[in-house]
Amino acid sequence: MNKNSSNIMALAPNTSKKRETVCIFGTGDFGRALGHKMIQSGYPVVFGSRSAQISSLIPKDAEVLSHAEAAQKAAIIIIAIQRQHYNFLTPLAEILHGKVLVDVSNNLKINQYPESNAEYLAQLVPGAKVVKAFNTVSAWALQSGTLDASRQVFVCGDDMEAKQMVMDIVRALGLTPLDQGSLLAAQEIENYPLQLFPMWKFPIFLSLGLTAFFFFYCLIRDIIYSYVYENKDFSFFIAISIPNRICPILALMLLALVYLPGVLAAILQLYRGTKYRRFPDWLDKWMLCRKQLGLVALAFASLHVLYTLVIPIRSYVSWRTSSSILSQAQKNETQPLNTTYAWLSDSYLALGILGFFLFVLLGITSLPSVSNNVNWREFRFVQSKLGYLTLILCTAHTLVYGGNRFLSPSSYRWYLPNAYMLSLIVPCIVLVVKCVLIFPCLDKPLTRIRQGWERNPQSSE
Amino acid sequence: MNKNSSNIMALAPNTSKKRETVCIFGTGDFGRALGHKMIQSGYPVVFGSRSAQISSLIPKDAEVLSHAEAAQKAAIIIIAIQRQHYNFLTPLAEILHGKVLVDVSNNLKINQYPESNAEYLAQLVPGAKVVKAFNTVSAWALQSGTLDASRQVFVCGDDMEAKQMVMDIVRALGLTPLDQGSLLAAQEIENYPLQLFPMWKFPIFLSLGLTAFFFFYCLIRDIIYSYVYENKDFSFFIAISIPNRICPILALMLLALVYLPGVLAAILQLYRGTKYRRFPDWLDKWMLCRKQLGLVALAFASLHVLYTLVIPIRSYVSWRTSSSILSQAQKNETQPLNTTYAWLSDSYLALGILGFFLFVLLGITSLPSVSNNVNWREFRFVQSKLGYLTLILCTAHTLVYGGNRFLSPSSYRWYLPNAYMLSLIVPCIVLVVKCVLIFPCLDKPLTRIRQGWERNPQSSE
Amino acid sequence: MNKNSSNIMALAPNTSKKRETVCIFGTGDFGRALGHKMIQSGYPVVFGSRSAQISSLIPKDAEVLSHAEAAQKAAIIIIAIQRQHYNFLTPLAEILHGKVLVDVSNNLKINQYPESNAEYLAQLVPGAKVVKAFNTVSAWALQSGTLDASRQVFVCGDDMEAKQMVMDIVRALGLTPLDQGSLLAAQEIENYPLQLFPMWKFPIFLSLGLTAFFFFYCLIRDIIYSYVYENKDFSFFIAISIPNRICPILALMLLALVYLPGVLAAILQLYRGTKYRRFPDWLDKWMLCRKQLGLVALAFASLHVLYTLVIPIRSYVSWRTSSSILSQAQKNETQPLNTTYAWLSDSYLALGILGFFLFVLLGITSLPSVSNNVNWREFRFVQSKLGYLTLILCTAHTLVYGGNRFLSPSSYRWYLPNAYMLSLIVPCIVLVVKCVLIFPCLDKPLTRIRQGWERNPQSSE
Repeated sequence: MNKNSSNIMALAPNTSKKRETVCIFGTGDFGRALGHKMIQSGYPVVFGSRSAQISSLIPKDAEVLSHAEAAQKAAIIIIAIQRQHYNFLTPLAEILHGKVLVDVSNNLKINQYPESNAEYLAQLVPGAKVVKAFNTVSAWALQSGTLDASRQVFVCGDDMEAKQMVMDIVRALGLTPLDQGSLLAAQEIENYPLQLFPMWKFPIFLSLGLTAFFFFYCLIRDIIYSYVYENKDFSFFIAISIPNRICPILALMLLALVYLPGVLAAILQLYRGTKYRRFPDWLDKWMLCRKQLGLVALAFASLHVLYTLVIPIRSYVSWRTSSSILSQAQKNETQPLNTTYAWLSDSYLALGILGFFLFVLLGITSLPSVSNNVNWREFRFVQSKLGYLTLILCTAHTLVYGGNRFLSPSSYRWYLPNAYMLSLIVPCIVLVVKCVLIFPCLDKPLTRIRQGWERNPQSSE
Repeated sequence: MNKNSSNIMALAPNTSKKRETVCIFGTGDFGRALGHKMIQSGYPVVFGSRSAQISSLIPKDAEVLSHAEAAQKAAIIIIAIQRQHYNFLTPLAEILHGKVLVDVSNNLKINQYPESNAEYLAQLVPGAKVVKAFNTVSAWALQSGTLDASRQVFVCGDDMEAKQMVMDIVRALGLTPLDQGSLLAAQEIENYPLQLFPMWKFPIFLSLGLTAFFFFYCLIRDIIYSYVYENKDFSFFIAISIPNRICPILALMLLALVYLPGVLAAILQLYRGTKYRRFPDWLDKWMLCRKQLGLVALAFASLHVLYTLVIPIRSYVSWRTSSSILSQAQKNETQPLNTTYAWLSDSYLALGILGFFLFVLLGITSLPSVSNNVNWREFRFVQSKLGYLTLILCTAHTLVYGGNRFLSPSSYRWYLPNAYMLSLIVPCIVLVVKCVLIFPCLDKPLTRIRQGWERNPQSSE
Repeated sequence: MNKNSSNIMALAPNTSKKRETVCIFGTGDFGRALGHKMIQSGYPVVFGSRSAQISSLIPKDAEVLSHAEAAQKAAIIIIAIQRQHYNFLTPLAEILHGKVLVDVSNNLKINQYPESNAEYLAQLVPGAKVVKAFNTVSAWALQSGTLDASRQVFVCGDDMEAKQMVMDIVRALGLTPLDQGSLLAAQEIENYPLQLFPMWKFPIFLSLGLTAFFFFYCLIRDIIYSYVYENKDFSFFIAISIPNRICPILALMLLALVYLPGVLAAILQLYRGTKYRRFPDWLDKWMLCRKQLGLVALAFASLHVLYTLVIPIRSYVSWRTSSSILSQAQKNETQPLNTTYAWLSDSYLALGILGFFLFVLLGITSLPSVSNNVNWREFRFVQSKLGYLTLILCTAHTLVYGGNRFLSPSSYRWYLPNAYMLSLIVPCIVLVVKCVLIFPCLDKPLTRIRQGWERNPQSSE
């Protein structure tokens, strides 16, 4: 059913039976939107408001009473009020005793207050059962019914029964409740909607830094060098040629960085002789953002493919081709086909195509809905076996591209090697170490360690 | 687990305990498929049939009785009969009193009857609790277990408890129940399986109309003009050249139309001084199909990329290249590299690549499983910030492609400007108005209005 | 919320109330990981262990007791022990009477034992209610919280109430329980995590076989023939030219094989005059792996697109272009534009682009999260109508590519036709038969048969 139809449907509150009354404190945007949605889902709703005056914006089927009167009518009270005004609840403490208070508030900054709003509420009204919920849903989404973004509602609270009641309401509203445990989780839940791709920060800053470095590196080697020594203006290389050097370099390096922490962890486990000691913090964090690193690498690889495929359309390239043909025509000579060079050119392109194809496959299997349909053995097969095959193909692609240029002195302008040579360092290290780890003398103990065996068992007591 | 395995598993009805008996009226395809599936899930099933004669197609573990007898054995009765035959239920009204009747029927046309089948059923048997469910699932899907399409089952009904019982059965069958509210929603639920991409209709018809217009426009300018004035037959342009003009034009125009309603809404809110008045209906509808508009635009952009990348393989293009080189060779002249032109060519390609790359990113984040994993701030960041960046890049791509041709009189054949010039009108308007709206003197009041502030508060009472 | 945050949240077991105590037998990796996760979710956990000695790895908030003592404290006992050691449970039979035993074990091979581990457990402790669950989740995933792969937990068991209790725990742990029916399903559930893409095996082996055949076919025709008769070394064709012949051939053949079983089924139903007889086993299996066949075909089509688009960058191709231009320059001749050839070249490219575009659309709609958002009518429209259109476009692309080469004798080296001609056999058969089936004289009875009509109704009794 289209997302927008949910606000058309189910407009008959009067015919519904048996849902328990819900009280909402606060008649702001969010309180009204939530009340509206609840009425649609068959809940009788009572608003608690400072002024008994009824605004035209409040859903018609809802009652509006004073806070104290409204609270007495329901077992569940939703506090749709900003944290600064929570203290008006203190005089109501007696009425609120034993009631379920749902904190739906958000802050403006991450960790704005020492304790979460929900915990603060629990301190203010000690007799009530506080549950944190609904803060990840926007008023606009509730109102318009266009829940394109997440339908997940994180719920936490110390009282199981209260939490269950709130989760039932969440489900009745067509949203997905996710139990996050006790009220201690409220801080995390309140920070969640304020985050902007937290897991992507490291991969993106890393790639921005590397991009800047390689941009200036290529600028010096390819544009400034030509300008200084050959007096040629190749400044237009900035648009396509240089990006098309940076993208494959970053794709390869980031892909290698996806597999480096796994190799480091294996070495660490072999050295320690146990898997029961925590990895250093940086290694843990690195391992958790491997998926994001890989996807950023895939983005650079895709750009590289696009930049490469437009090469024949570039006006500079067609000029180069025609001037090379014209100079041959003037000399009246015809070059024979160089089979070695045809082999090199074709095989580096083929390796690149296969590498990119596998890379895209990896990307597709990391889509949540796809990875949810495979079992662990399949997921590991794809992410590990296919992943290493991708790394091998992409490294080979770069090596064959280099061909015999590695030893040619003309590749070292101002003693700077070609940028792609630098990009080969990390992937080659990863592949060599991985090859060494596959030898039975290392693989066998590693497998045993990973199954729980310990070299010095007493160390773990 | 593979979708087809669910019909292999769980074949032992006898060992299951405690599921309540379910009665099914009707032994047609759907009734039998549903009965089969329920027996697999551990429900005792009784069929109610006109003839007590037992067909070999009815699941073996099910009893077949007369309607009255069968109804007495169960609290839930599934009415797997066509609406035309519902009136046979009238004599059974006494037995059906207080029972849960599940209407699973579908119609052949949208809004075929004045009231939904479920409401008609409720009128016929006033003492029963009617619940609408299962109409979105096909008999074939139930039987084969290959639920590749939706597992969602929309449920609605006036009695909460009855609805809950049906939703439990839905869940036990491995399907996902979605509560749609009271029985008034039945009409909408019955129309749902008859719809064919309702949200896509406007974007698709719009783009078909624009495609036809620009096709004839280009036909006149590029083929008929050449034929009339230069007597050249460029009719083969119909295959690739003209589609490759239409696609980028439509991609850019549709992308601009995604962002135009947001800009209009902002102007309207500023003018009215409140956000609490409904937008005109056309604007509301337009805003709801923005995602579909954007995806159609992405489809055109992808086709444009493919059409552009095959350019060098086209036999016409290689003929053009070789004849241009040959004419230079005959004149024995060599053109020097035109750096300005190299800059223009490279930068318009680079802008196009980056624009398309961001556009694909936007497309990926609109996949349901991806957008479900981001919070609101992230979703808005991607769809608004990245979206505008895409629009800016694509507009710049078209502007630079035009280069200095805008002023050249040869671009105006028969006083018709190049088609891409027409495509720039809407995106330029959107970008200019958006720029104006960013100015603090407009942005500040707009933000306040969106936070609930009203210029003339009394107007909303 | 990011997947890794769930292990940070909800660390306050003491404040939680009312969750029932869970007992875990076995303090290995999986038992500890599960215990840890349960404590986080608010369950009091008691470990049953052979040695009362407390390992430092066991979660601090858990008690460790002897098996008998631990079992008495809980209604649910998780048996996190390998099957070989299950017989230690026999002496505990009296204590375990009436308890819910959760079998979480996995085997090393598919169908390793005659009966599933869970059924074996049920035989050992006849008085207990055995439920199979959690075997699809890995210890590592539970511990790290990075549930990138499936969150689905298959649950089966003969006792409904016991199953419900286990499913509640699964839900509380943030995982998705899927009821698979009675304990007979345990075998299937235990085999599940050991499977490696079972539905993909046939498509992948088929395409590997066809790839090998066509590779040698092209090797003989394109490389060995040239070497023998023309003494030219075209061995570098192995890298790109030959793959770029194999990929489109396989894509087209596999796509036709997706639609062949549907056509065969229609013929069979027409011949039999009923839809109520089972298809032969091979046809059933074939129909169930159509989606996988189609996706493999899409993979080959994507490779074909990439291989084709790099053509102009290949050094061999640029050599061929320049030598053809140079030979023209030496003869001082200029070829005029051959409009027929331009038409052929452009239209085969355009057909290929449109076919590939629709093919990608089909691929996107087969993503689980997308197909979950369409109704049956839409799903069938896309997979059938758009699918046949794709097949028609791709077949036409190949036919136009062949052009007038079909009759040219030079296409038959060593009497072997060009490989692409072979690939046209299956799609042409499918399209012709489908066309015949659309005729009303066949379509009408087929539609009636599919709606349940039978030519000889008595045959089905």
